[in-house]
Amino acid sequence: MKGDPDPGSTRVDAIAVRGGARETRPETLVVEEPLELRLDGVPIAVTMRTPGHDVELAAGFLVTEGIVSDFGLVNAIAHCEQTENAVEIRTEPGAEGVRPPAHRHFFASSSCGICGKATLEALRTLAAPVHGDPVRVDAAVLESLPARLRDAQPLFRATGALHAAALFTAEGELLCAREDVGRHNAVDKLVGWAALEGRLPLRGAILLASGRLGFEIAQKALVAGVPVLAAISGPSSLAVELARENGMTLVAFLRGDGWNVYAGAERISSRV
Amino acid sequence: MKGDPDPGSTRVDAIAVRGGARETRPETLVVEEPLELRLDGVPIAVTMRTPGHDVELAAGFLVTEGIVSDFGLVNAIAHCEQTENAVEIRTEPGAEGVRPPAHRHFFASSSCGICGKATLEALRTLAAPVHGDPVRVDAAVLESLPARLRDAQPLFRATGALHAAALFTAEGELLCAREDVGRHNAVDKLVGWAALEGRLPLRGAILLASGRLGFEIAQKALVAGVPVLAAISGPSSLAVELARENGMTLVAFLRGDGWNVYAGAERISSRV
Repeated sequence: MKGDPDPGSTRVDAIAVRGGARETRPETLVVEEPLELRLDGVPIAVTMRTPGHDVELAAGFLVTEGIVSDFGLVNAIAHCEQTENAVEIRTEPGAEGVRPPAHRHFFASSSCGICGKATLEALRTLAAPVHGDPVRVDAAVLESLPARLRDAQPLFRATGALHAAALFTAEGELLCAREDVGRHNAVDKLVGWAALEGRLPLRGAILLASGRLGFEIAQKALVAGVPVLAAISGPSSLAVELARENGMTLVAFLRGDGWNVYAGAERISSRV
Repeated sequence: MKGDPDPGSTRVDAIAVRGGARETRPETLVVEEPLELRLDGVPIAVTMRTPGHDVELAAGFLVTEGIVSDFGLVNAIAHCEQTENAVEIRTEPGAEGVRPPAHRHFFASSSCGICGKATLEALRTLAAPVHGDPVRVDAAVLESLPARLRDAQPLFRATGALHAAALFTAEGELLCAREDVGRHNAVDKLVGWAALEGRLPLRGAILLASGRLGFEIAQKALVAGVPVLAAISGPSSLAVELARENGMTLVAFLRGDGWNVYAGAERISSRV
């Protein structure tokens, strides 16, 4: 199913049914393949992702999952020699502040009894609040972002089936946009881009997600220090709770000039 | 943020911006909370889910993740006494055919070098092909399913922000529909419903998903024995590969009377 020059899409023959007529024709699909992440030789995760920006994906995963406390502890990230579907991460030997995800999972799960609550608390402790970020965003800038995100989604236009996320400045300048079959991966690629560019924490930035906004996306944005999070679709209860507790502005259903603010409205300047 | 009688939704105050005017008003949100799954006393997974049908979710997870080779090995599934956010699963003591997910993950990851490929092979071995399922589906029945799915999405109507999946007979009769913030959870709840009803494998059934169709959804449907998989949005390359290799019919972009068939078209009877 390969042969397309863009590793993110491929063409397959499909039967197109249109009003009862059938026609076999090539359709462009988003590519999904597993990526194994290895930390100093030890496999730590397998994620189903769209190939492309794999090093950014790994870098972002390290940051947003709290695997490294400081991105400076990462010495190298590169594809394995044997395959494009594995990335090897090398960290500073003997450094504190590097912990595989199993450690966190164990911590999160080892105190059942109040497990739901304990689990959540463990997940939340990764992130520092962003109450102190003084950024202000004009409502008109927010309203302009969905169109800019669409312009930065070439794979979506070709395939109609993947997620996107983008980082903008408070003035609406596009910093980076990424697409992936996994919504978490799209955000990890953005955060990884920022980590590799030395831009963490992402003070003053806006992160826009193409779809729904759940806890894990909000948590990843918070860990990266993003003060303003926006989504084209709706948020979950827990995403709103997380934003409110940590001083993050949360905008959702951002479509045209009708949208909702669930947290941190003081950062949004009104035109009226 | 609680108080709504439906555990799947809650109301929070939001600022609604409409054409430059702002108004604070209550908005209905989908509830997202962690659910910890414990297998014979050992935590095996935490998933962020919409509360409701938790026992089905656990049952489906056991099946679709290959944790039990036979659902008959499960003796009991119930919420922990201390919290609604944990479910305890009890299996037949000493039974072979019960393996925690760590086992599978270790197997999948222990042979890097060819890791992408090995990982995929390991994931795929869980499922038996469905080439032998003789079910036939009329194109008109397929085209009627999206509207029936929408009718079975009360939480989506209230919140605008969650996934759904439904099982239908080949004649288009709705068997079961479930909603969740996680698309995998919605499918696991369906499969769990079938497991608890003694309906596995789901021979002759159609599974319709509200969103995109990636490998993991296709894999879960295949493990449950579903012969016909359909989605409102598009499939990934790997979902199509999996369907073709295992004799599963895969329909996507199912919207009105224009849609695509990527695999197993022989099961769909044409009107023309």
